[in-house]
Amino acid sequence: MGSDYPPSLRCGLPGLILFLETAFILIFWFCFSKESQSTSEDLEIYPAFQDVNVLVIFGFGFLLASFKRYGFSSIGFNLLIATLGVQWAVLVEGFLFASSAGKVKIGLHSVLKATISVTAVLISAGALLGKANPIQLIWMAMVEVAAFSTSRWINVRFLKIEEHTSLMHVHIFGTYFGLAVSWWLYHSSLSKRIEKETSNPISDLFSMLGTLFLWMFWPSFNSVLIVDVMEKRNAICNTYYAIAVSAVAAFALSSLSSRNGKIRMIHIHHAALAGGVALGFSAPVIPHPWIAMILGLLASMVAVLGSHCLQTYLNSVLKIHDTCGVHYTFGLPGLLGAIVNVVLFIIIKWASLSTLGYLALIEVGSFMLTTAIGLGTGFITGFILTFKLWKTLPASKYFDDQAYWEFPHLAYGF
Amino acid sequence: MGSDYPPSLRCGLPGLILFLETAFILIFWFCFSKESQSTSEDLEIYPAFQDVNVLVIFGFGFLLASFKRYGFSSIGFNLLIATLGVQWAVLVEGFLFASSAGKVKIGLHSVLKATISVTAVLISAGALLGKANPIQLIWMAMVEVAAFSTSRWINVRFLKIEEHTSLMHVHIFGTYFGLAVSWWLYHSSLSKRIEKETSNPISDLFSMLGTLFLWMFWPSFNSVLIVDVMEKRNAICNTYYAIAVSAVAAFALSSLSSRNGKIRMIHIHHAALAGGVALGFSAPVIPHPWIAMILGLLASMVAVLGSHCLQTYLNSVLKIHDTCGVHYTFGLPGLLGAIVNVVLFIIIKWASLSTLGYLALIEVGSFMLTTAIGLGTGFITGFILTFKLWKTLPASKYFDDQAYWEFPHLAYGF
Amino acid sequence: MGSDYPPSLRCGLPGLILFLETAFILIFWFCFSKESQSTSEDLEIYPAFQDVNVLVIFGFGFLLASFKRYGFSSIGFNLLIATLGVQWAVLVEGFLFASSAGKVKIGLHSVLKATISVTAVLISAGALLGKANPIQLIWMAMVEVAAFSTSRWINVRFLKIEEHTSLMHVHIFGTYFGLAVSWWLYHSSLSKRIEKETSNPISDLFSMLGTLFLWMFWPSFNSVLIVDVMEKRNAICNTYYAIAVSAVAAFALSSLSSRNGKIRMIHIHHAALAGGVALGFSAPVIPHPWIAMILGLLASMVAVLGSHCLQTYLNSVLKIHDTCGVHYTFGLPGLLGAIVNVVLFIIIKWASLSTLGYLALIEVGSFMLTTAIGLGTGFITGFILTFKLWKTLPASKYFDDQAYWEFPHLAYGF
Repeated sequence: MGSDYPPSLRCGLPGLILFLETAFILIFWFCFSKESQSTSEDLEIYPAFQDVNVLVIFGFGFLLASFKRYGFSSIGFNLLIATLGVQWAVLVEGFLFASSAGKVKIGLHSVLKATISVTAVLISAGALLGKANPIQLIWMAMVEVAAFSTSRWINVRFLKIEEHTSLMHVHIFGTYFGLAVSWWLYHSSLSKRIEKETSNPISDLFSMLGTLFLWMFWPSFNSVLIVDVMEKRNAICNTYYAIAVSAVAAFALSSLSSRNGKIRMIHIHHAALAGGVALGFSAPVIPHPWIAMILGLLASMVAVLGSHCLQTYLNSVLKIHDTCGVHYTFGLPGLLGAIVNVVLFIIIKWASLSTLGYLALIEVGSFMLTTAIGLGTGFITGFILTFKLWKTLPASKYFDDQAYWEFPHLAYGF
Repeated sequence: MGSDYPPSLRCGLPGLILFLETAFILIFWFCFSKESQSTSEDLEIYPAFQDVNVLVIFGFGFLLASFKRYGFSSIGFNLLIATLGVQWAVLVEGFLFASSAGKVKIGLHSVLKATISVTAVLISAGALLGKANPIQLIWMAMVEVAAFSTSRWINVRFLKIEEHTSLMHVHIFGTYFGLAVSWWLYHSSLSKRIEKETSNPISDLFSMLGTLFLWMFWPSFNSVLIVDVMEKRNAICNTYYAIAVSAVAAFALSSLSSRNGKIRMIHIHHAALAGGVALGFSAPVIPHPWIAMILGLLASMVAVLGSHCLQTYLNSVLKIHDTCGVHYTFGLPGLLGAIVNVVLFIIIKWASLSTLGYLALIEVGSFMLTTAIGLGTGFITGFILTFKLWKTLPASKYFDDQAYWEFPHLAYGF
Repeated sequence: MGSDYPPSLRCGLPGLILFLETAFILIFWFCFSKESQSTSEDLEIYPAFQDVNVLVIFGFGFLLASFKRYGFSSIGFNLLIATLGVQWAVLVEGFLFASSAGKVKIGLHSVLKATISVTAVLISAGALLGKANPIQLIWMAMVEVAAFSTSRWINVRFLKIEEHTSLMHVHIFGTYFGLAVSWWLYHSSLSKRIEKETSNPISDLFSMLGTLFLWMFWPSFNSVLIVDVMEKRNAICNTYYAIAVSAVAAFALSSLSSRNGKIRMIHIHHAALAGGVALGFSAPVIPHPWIAMILGLLASMVAVLGSHCLQTYLNSVLKIHDTCGVHYTFGLPGLLGAIVNVVLFIIIKWASLSTLGYLALIEVGSFMLTTAIGLGTGFITGFILTFKLWKTLPASKYFDDQAYWEFPHLAYGF
């Protein structure tokens, strides 16, 4: 092991976590008050909140657990940054959106929105999986939650984007933030796939477990924030049709794109979810199932094609290492969804609006702004994360649980 | 490998899937319109729909994942045929049940019923697991959904069977359709259990995972279609009592039936669910918990006894190879439930009806008709599936993921 | 193997289970009638009941599945004693709480309360995991359910403790009952950790799976019995904040307490849940999130510190072997919660009550009584379980699935 031995987290990690927790508790203490109204509404969203909670804590954790030596870290650090991130997001969102007369009012709605915001962090973490240590991940989570909430605040406040739409930018923001950070953490040894960076059949099954839970609860994710009953129903049905088609298409496209017609598990994991991501913006307004189905098909194609082209060509040229392929799972389908949303917006409102061009421009500006803020803040964050201060990991210890976890069973030679 | 190398799916599978998806999208485009009413009712069933969705996509997928070399295919192809099947079932059921004035009206209710119908396909796929390739499974799914919906339509239209009861025929139909297909796919090498056709402790735990999810959400499956509040409550409670007893009895009967008093995992998987299957028909009308409990006990007995007798004697005589034992998990408990339903019907209505004998006959006729249609259409489908056209698998490649999936980790000698 | 071969369960287990089931069915038959009212209320709690059901059947089963050779038994016997226990708890609770005019009235509420009561048995089983055979576990479940219900009845009837609070004693009762039984089953060979009593990475992931499901559905567990809308909302939010903080703190404390700053999976499993346990009593009345967060932090500390001190010093002195560490996962956080509850009670009611001291004394008396009854009945039960009659396992067969389960795959040398 020698000089390659990973730096101990003992000094950094506990101190950082306990400092943040103490700060959070103090801020909650002095600045926050419980929401006194709308409690029955809070209880009504509880089942849908649970679906989103399962999606974020369980689905993402296990989706990322596909590396044979990195299962503990994938699931464990997902829980760590999700729970820390939610608390921080409740605070940031509270100050930006819900503060009145000095005190911020919070309820279950605040936790729900915070949980959705944190998805951006989990997506970025997917791009860095195996390369960043928990200290880096926590700092990234703090910066990213603040950046995403600010971006969302600009969208809602100045561009008059709806709350639901602004939160659905989470996929695009998370992807480009993560890719920008990933550019800084690139190491020449990552250009070729090392042995540790592979799956085995059991880790693939655990990952499939996470994928299925994400797949099943995606209709809840796309519909939970919608208030109008009719639109909520539409969002649920349209998302279901889209992910059904993208799951089916994933098998066809995977078989078509491999050398001998065999299916690749990794394609199924990613392409099956692409339909849900693409529907994020337009799920409530799509008027017919067939439109959702075509969008699901396109998203699945983008994911499988992206997996081939980006991984092989673009990433090596740009010197980006996107561990879990978040670019083609969340980024490109998200952009596709944003573009389709603008097109649908123009078609639906064609007759009724004189200021159509202006409004369409706003919509386009909105997601381009989000992408730009994601890339920009990610770039700065990535630069900061390369400092020695964070006890960065030597590349030889990438993708290895043993850098962070004690394995009592090793003593018995398992 | 040589001549035993499995035929590449490259030509067949992507073409078939993309053809079907295009057809589905076109039919949705031209023939379907969104249901404009009852949206709040749609939202009310959403939590129960999610339970059924989890049961079908996750529960069945992992229940079948008990073969050590066939986990990818069990879970993956379950997702593939379930999602394709649901789309097709929405179409078929729409044309048969919901068409009015040229346009078919669909909502979340349609997706829910389609999901329940598709259970028949998943049960049949359980009987064929490891022996049929995805092209064969997809064709079987298409034919079976159409046949089951037609059978259901005859039951509802001509025999005046209730909607809920007609959908609960899904277990019986799926089993006998699957067994009939399985008769055609029989191969002499299947008479003795080969090494690949066994489980290992980890695959057994994955299978237990699926079993528990099926077990937990079975009360939702049996109650979701019932409208009356009192009957819905009864269906939930009775199903819970029945599956609780059948899970407990599974341990006793498994220990009793083995050589040295040890418990077999496979018995727990199957017998624990038998109570829920048996309650399918009569869950809402059973007046006392103890009746549900006795039915759960009987169903568990039928499953464990069936596992011994059918697997050892009947199947080898009939030359049927029932991979996952769907006959004693879903078929026999389903028949038991249907018979008990008729008996209960006679007892409850004894005093009040003059046409009792006639109505009881209709009930008996109904499930016998379903069984007959299942066996008949399954027989024809099985015959068609033996054609070389479907790129049937050589028996040496049965129960092997490597026939269909790319294993990147193999390159590293894992 | 020789004389160490474990006694066959063939004579005992099936007979015992079938005898109990027959008795249960007969009691249900003659003494119970369905509740005829409040059916819509029953349906309203169904989603929350499902959450609790998932927590008990799935969460506890997989949480305990962390030993590499004991996965089948952990999950299987959890299902067995949970389902048997729920039936028995419905009966006992029915006679104690709901009987009127000779007939006991039961509904979904009864099953829900029975499911929560059974948690005590599952916690005790965690302390005995690997050392008790299923016959012993079943007898323990029968005695413990009766003892807990009686203790609860005394609390509700004579000390006028609220129903919700009395059921939340389940963690304390289960822990001390289990520890007292465990004292009797102690064997000198347990003082040092044997090879079978360790986890491997895959069993740790299965255990993480269970932990996450317990973590996600704990807010439902703490809120399901609360009727008041405002208090229910509070219970959900406070529990969420507490478990979020205890999950985060678990990482910090685990890293801080290990030799080289590495994180131990077992700490995450236990400490992440401690916050939820500690909130059991006071979740609905805590007025501010920061109090819940501090309580979560303290509970996490108690769990990690307890894990070090108890396992190393106290248990070996007292000759107690607490397999799954239930003392510091459920016992100590539960006591912490009970004490905090009394303190909060005094602070909140400070001004308004003249009889404050008396009422606070009642609260303290209540949980001390529960602890005492748990220890006492556990001690007696443990003594009885040491009789040869129960076919106790030789210590060499502890923590080994092969004592109870048939492994067909062994024939192939897996």
